[in-house]
Amino acid sequence: MNLNIAVLPGDGIGPEVTKQAVKALTAIASEYNHNFKFTVADVGAIAIDKHGDALPDETLELCKNTDAILFGAIGDPKYDNDPSAKVRPEQGLLKLRKEMGLFANIRPVKAYQTLLDKSPLKKHIIEGTDISIYRELTGGIYFGEKQLSEDGNTASDLCTYSREEIERIARLAFVAAQNRDHRLTLVDKANVLESSRLWRKVVKELAEEYPDVKLDFLFVDNAAMQMILNPKQFDVILTENMFGDIISDEASVIGGSIGLLASASVGDKYAMFEPIHGSYPQAANKGIANPIASILSAAMLLSHFGLHNEAELIRLAVEKSLKLNITTPDINAENDTVTTTNVGDFIEDFI
Amino acid sequence: MNLNIAVLPGDGIGPEVTKQAVKALTAIASEYNHNFKFTVADVGAIAIDKHGDALPDETLELCKNTDAILFGAIGDPKYDNDPSAKVRPEQGLLKLRKEMGLFANIRPVKAYQTLLDKSPLKKHIIEGTDISIYRELTGGIYFGEKQLSEDGNTASDLCTYSREEIERIARLAFVAAQNRDHRLTLVDKANVLESSRLWRKVVKELAEEYPDVKLDFLFVDNAAMQMILNPKQFDVILTENMFGDIISDEASVIGGSIGLLASASVGDKYAMFEPIHGSYPQAANKGIANPIASILSAAMLLSHFGLHNEAELIRLAVEKSLKLNITTPDINAENDTVTTTNVGDFIEDFI
Ligand SMILES: CC(C)[C@H](C(=O)O)[C@@H](O)C(=O)O
Ligand SMILES: CC(C)[C@H](C(=O)O)[C@@H](O)C(=O)O
Repeated sequence: MNLNIAVLPGDGIGPEVTKQAVKALTAIASEYNHNFKFTVADVGAIAIDKHGDALPDETLELCKNTDAILFGAIGDPKYDNDPSAKVRPEQGLLKLRKEMGLFANIRPVKAYQTLLDKSPLKKHIIEGTDISIYRELTGGIYFGEKQLSEDGNTASDLCTYSREEIERIARLAFVAAQNRDHRLTLVDKANVLESSRLWRKVVKELAEEYPDVKLDFLFVDNAAMQMILNPKQFDVILTENMFGDIISDEASVIGGSIGLLASASVGDKYAMFEPIHGSYPQAANKGIANPIASILSAAMLLSHFGLHNEAELIRLAVEKSLKLNITTPDINAENDTVTTTNVGDFIEDFI
Repeated sequence: MNLNIAVLPGDGIGPEVTKQAVKALTAIASEYNHNFKFTVADVGAIAIDKHGDALPDETLELCKNTDAILFGAIGDPKYDNDPSAKVRPEQGLLKLRKEMGLFANIRPVKAYQTLLDKSPLKKHIIEGTDISIYRELTGGIYFGEKQLSEDGNTASDLCTYSREEIERIARLAFVAAQNRDHRLTLVDKANVLESSRLWRKVVKELAEEYPDVKLDFLFVDNAAMQMILNPKQFDVILTENMFGDIISDEASVIGGSIGLLASASVGDKYAMFEPIHGSYPQAANKGIANPIASILSAAMLLSHFGLHNEAELIRLAVEKSLKLNITTPDINAENDTVTTTNVGDFIEDFI
């Protein structure tokens, strides 16, 4: 198969981990006789520094002309505490999601058998957890109108959703549930928010088309609690943008490290694959960043194009590295000398 | 001391647990020669059923003419899945908060030594945790303009904050930090939301007046993760309404049961005390509801009026009941026959 892949390493640890994912994909290509072409472009803080724009036109252009995007991470603290900053690295990511129509962010959460002891949660709580989170990614309060009053003393963000926005991701989530354990949980705050009530209404109506899926509802505050009390109760979770951001980062503790969690952001035309972790600038260039989330994002990319054996091989390689403890310090208590590159090398060799 | 206390039991398990808190307060009054006068009023689903209004005028009137409010719980599933319901139990609570100006919800989160094993989190993670969450309670997306389009296909909620709204609760949080471990963490989403950037700006400015408090910032997604990875890192957490709702429910897992968490909602003139748990209708009238959150809310009420010894006595009684395992099934694996009333009786007798 021929695939053009745009590689957007971004900021902080983004470049290091993305490099390992590209290595894994290259190994897969040579093993299976595929032809993967990688083109690197700037996004985020580094793009602001170089081009004055968090998402330069060339980058967006490139993305629109590739089959898939491999994304690293974005963000730099020098912009976080400057409320008056006019450009922000995150705008690059948000604009990319919006322009490419990547409305569904899919985040699998799994408790790896070999890592059960690494989690802050007790083993019996997490063992067997297997959740797929469907987070809406191009709507809600992230993209609603933002206002700052003239005098700078009042600020607002609008959270808005339309039936179409809800329906298209809900359908994906229903289908995912059909292919899994047939259970779908909508997380919302319908006892307070008008937009949540619309979510509940639309999803309830759609449920009639998927009679084999058991639908239930959970308020987001309760969901944040249930995710820790009993994560095994969940199969597919569907939720809006902001709640999905919070709940999926929270859920990362189940796997033992956020450095393991991959995600796919898909739309009608394009697809992007990225770790759910951030840019962790304080860890950059130290060789301690866990590349597995990025490598597993590459596996999701392969699955997306139907290359299931290839994806499975990457996953196998990852599980092997975990079993052999060839892992970065975040999940390696015994040996803190294994570097980002070491992990990538092992997975490349294994493939 | 003379205190007029409005008792608003509300829905589900509200009445049962509130009854135990009133018993505890009555015991305190007779032990310390105080004069507490309790007046009961309707709120929530029960108020809708009886008066067609989740917060009847008489109830609000009563609240405005008392020294403090003891609140139970609110909510009934028959309203949750009806997106077209015109009145909702929750409106009663929200209106009460707004009308009484209860802008700060204070939620202490503690790992009880005797309950360390009950938490889904590992003992070494939670041991020693002692957090005080300051959640803004009368602003943000809860109270911003809500819209549903004519055709019912678009819905929106506005999240808005003003400098004043932020300042008044931030000051309380800074002072709390001064009386504790001198650390304050603002939880926001300043990399995306305009309102969060205003929070960050205002809180940063205020920090200069409290040089003995170490201020830091955490994005809400990261905070949801850090709360589980390492809750001991937090002293005082300050956040807006919606994030506070999520983060504090999540934090309840640290204590082993949400049935233990009390809260105080305070404003310039009034104060209300309530468990953070909901109405759990499925547990109502079974004698299994944990009254401790409500009883500890009563202790917060006493502290609020400077009755610190009295509050301490209630806390002692609660700790004793935990130590002796005179607790409801949510935290009692060995003995599931202890009822709500049994716990209340023990605490009453102890006092
Ligand atoms: C960087 C930030 C804008 C982003 C988000 O909030 O969506 C990140 O947290 C994520 O989850 O991908
Ligand atoms: C019942 C509901 C409206 C309320 C809230 O979201 O504030 C509750 O969850 C709480 O935290 O007190």
